[in-house]
Amino acid sequence: MTPLSRSAILNITDGIEPPDELWRARARAHLDTLTKPLGSLGYLEDLAAQVAAIRRANPVLPMSKAVYVFAADHGITAEGVSAYPSAVTKQMVLNFVAGGAAVSVLARLHGVVLHVVDMGVDGDFENVSGLLHRKVRKGTRNMLREPAMTDEELSQALRAGAELADEAAAAGHTVLAVGEMGIGNTTAASAITCALTGSTALRATGRGTGLDDAAHESKTAVVDAIVKKHFAELTALNPLDILRCVGGLEIAAMTGMILAAARSRIALMIDGFISSAATALAVAMEPRIRGYLIAGHRSKEPGHRLLLEHLGLDPLLDLEMRLGEGSGAVLAMPILESAVALYSQMATFSSAGVSEALA
Amino acid sequence: MTPLSRSAILNITDGIEPPDELWRARARAHLDTLTKPLGSLGYLEDLAAQVAAIRRANPVLPMSKAVYVFAADHGITAEGVSAYPSAVTKQMVLNFVAGGAAVSVLARLHGVVLHVVDMGVDGDFENVSGLLHRKVRKGTRNMLREPAMTDEELSQALRAGAELADEAAAAGHTVLAVGEMGIGNTTAASAITCALTGSTALRATGRGTGLDDAAHESKTAVVDAIVKKHFAELTALNPLDILRCVGGLEIAAMTGMILAAARSRIALMIDGFISSAATALAVAMEPRIRGYLIAGHRSKEPGHRLLLEHLGLDPLLDLEMRLGEGSGAVLAMPILESAVALYSQMATFSSAGVSEALA
Repeated sequence: MTPLSRSAILNITDGIEPPDELWRARARAHLDTLTKPLGSLGYLEDLAAQVAAIRRANPVLPMSKAVYVFAADHGITAEGVSAYPSAVTKQMVLNFVAGGAAVSVLARLHGVVLHVVDMGVDGDFENVSGLLHRKVRKGTRNMLREPAMTDEELSQALRAGAELADEAAAAGHTVLAVGEMGIGNTTAASAITCALTGSTALRATGRGTGLDDAAHESKTAVVDAIVKKHFAELTALNPLDILRCVGGLEIAAMTGMILAAARSRIALMIDGFISSAATALAVAMEPRIRGYLIAGHRSKEPGHRLLLEHLGLDPLLDLEMRLGEGSGAVLAMPILESAVALYSQMATFSSAGVSEALA
Repeated sequence: MTPLSRSAILNITDGIEPPDELWRARARAHLDTLTKPLGSLGYLEDLAAQVAAIRRANPVLPMSKAVYVFAADHGITAEGVSAYPSAVTKQMVLNFVAGGAAVSVLARLHGVVLHVVDMGVDGDFENVSGLLHRKVRKGTRNMLREPAMTDEELSQALRAGAELADEAAAAGHTVLAVGEMGIGNTTAASAITCALTGSTALRATGRGTGLDDAAHESKTAVVDAIVKKHFAELTALNPLDILRCVGGLEIAAMTGMILAAARSRIALMIDGFISSAATALAVAMEPRIRGYLIAGHRSKEPGHRLLLEHLGLDPLLDLEMRLGEGSGAVLAMPILESAVALYSQMATFSSAGVSEALA
C-alpha cells in the first residue's frame, strides 16, 4: 500500500464533480438555433457543449490557454530502450525554454502560454529562468530492478502537478494542454498501458523516438519483464501502485494536474501516448474527471490507440504525429477555440432572417 | 462538344506545372535537421514540404490566406431534393456578408480573408456591399429535364473563377480555401461523383442538409435519373460535359479557380463534398494540379469519401462536419500554418545543442 500518496490523492480528488448536464443540454439547444443544418458542425458541437458543461457557462472567446510540459528522466534508459541518449531530456528542456522546440513554436503561434516544469531531469538548471523548478529526484530508479519511485517521491510529484493546476486556475486559465519530455518514458507508458488495459507488451510497445526492429524487440522484452516483475497478476491493480512501480515523475505530475484541473472545472486537452497514460491513471483514481477530457490527437504509438479506446475518447486529430511535448494537444487548441467561436458568434435563424428546414 | 468552354479551359490550364520536386526534397532535408525524432511530425512534415514544392521557396509565416465562397441556386430543387427552401441560398449569402455564418466566424478567428461571390443566386443583391457580383444566371436549369447550363454559361462561370484566382494571386494570397453555398448542390455533386467515379447513385447520395429516409430515397432516385439521362454510358466522359449537364454555376466557378490558382502556384485547401466535386473535375481537366491540393476535412456526406478516394487525398480533419461554406477548409488552415511555423521556426540539432539519435 501507499499511505502517503493515497492521502495526497484523497486531498486532490476531494470535491471533483462531473461536468454539468443541464448546461450541456442548454448549450445543445442554443446550437440548434444557429444558422446551419441541425448537427452539421459535427464534433465541434459536442466540443462547445462540453465546454459549457465544464465551465457551467456559455463559452466565449478569448479562452485562456496554457500548456504544461513536465520533464523527467528515467532509470530504465540503462536498459537501452531509447534511440536517444538520456542527456536529450535536459537539452530539450533548454530548447523548450529558448523557444526552438516544436511545442514552443506551436504554443507561440496559437496563443498558448507555455510552462516547462522540471520534475526530475538528470541535470541542473540553476541559472535557467523561465522554468518551473519542481525536481523530486534526478530521474526515477530502474524499474526493471526496483519500483521507479518511493511512496514519498510519488506523493511529492502528484502534489506538484496538482498545485500547478491550482495556480493555473487562479491565473484564470480555462483549458490546459498536458505534455511531457523524458527520454525513456514511452517504456513507462507501455508498462502502464499493460497494467491498466491488460494488453500484452507486444501490443503496447512502439518504436518511441525511432527504434529499429531489433531495438524494438528488445524494448518489448523489457516492458514484458517490468510488468511481470511488478504485477504478477493484472487484476485489481491500484493506480497508485502502478504509478509508483512503473511510472515517471513527469507522469505522476501530469496525473496530479489532470485531477486537480478537473476539480477547478478546467478543460483538459490530452496529448499523445504518455499524456494519455497519465490520464488513464487519473481516471482510474477518479472516474468523475472523464467529462473534462478532450483527446487532442491520436499518436502513431500503438499503445496510444489502446489507451484512447480504454478511455473511450475520440481524438480531434490523427496526423501520424509521435513527438509528445504536448505538441498534438496544442495543435488541437484552434479546433476547440473554433467550436467556442461558432457557439458564441454565429447568427441564429431568427436574427439573420434565414428560413428553417421545410416541415 | 463544348467549344466555348473548351477554349476557356485551354486558356486557364495553359502553363500549369506540377509542384517542384527539388524543393520538396530540399524541404525534407531541412525537416530532418530540426530538434525532433525523424518524421515525428507526421503529416505536418508532408504539408510543409508540399508548401515548399508549391511555392518554390522555404515556407514562412505569415501566410496570406483567403476563402472564396461561391453561391448559386439550382433548378433541380424543383424536384424536392433539399430539406431547405431555395430562398436560403440568398439568405445565407447575406448572412456570410454580415458575419454571422459559420464560415464568417471561422475566417475571422483564423485570419482568413472572406470573399463571397454571387455566381448565380436566384435573387438580387443590388444594394449589398462586400459581395463579388459575378452572377451568370439566376440559378441553373432543372437538370432532370435539360442540361443545367449552356456552353456559354459554363464558360462564363469557369472564367469568373479563374479571374478571381488571378486577382487572389495578384493580392499576394499563398493559400486559398474554396467553399460554396447553394441549396440543391449536393444533388449536383452526387451526379458529378457518379459520372467521375462510376459509383451508383445509392452510394454517392447523402442526406445533404438533413433529409429523412423517404426524402433521401427520393433524392437518390433523382440522382440516378439525372445520371441516366445525361450519361447513357459512364465511360470516356468529358469533364466539361459533366459540368455543363449536371453541375452548378458555383461548382464551375470553383473548378476555374482551382485550375487558375494552381497555375499561380497557390496552395488549395479543399473543403467538403461540393468543393471536392469541383476539384475532381479540375483534376480530370488537368491532372498536374494534383500536387496543389490539400484536403481540409472529410465530410459526413458519403459521396465525399468516394471523391477523396478517387482523388487520393487524405483529409487533415475528420470531425463529422457536413456544412459546406468552406467551413472545413478554413478550420484546417491553422494546421497548415502550424506546419509552416514548425518548418521555419524550430531549432536545429546543432543550433540548440541537442544530441542526435544513437548510432
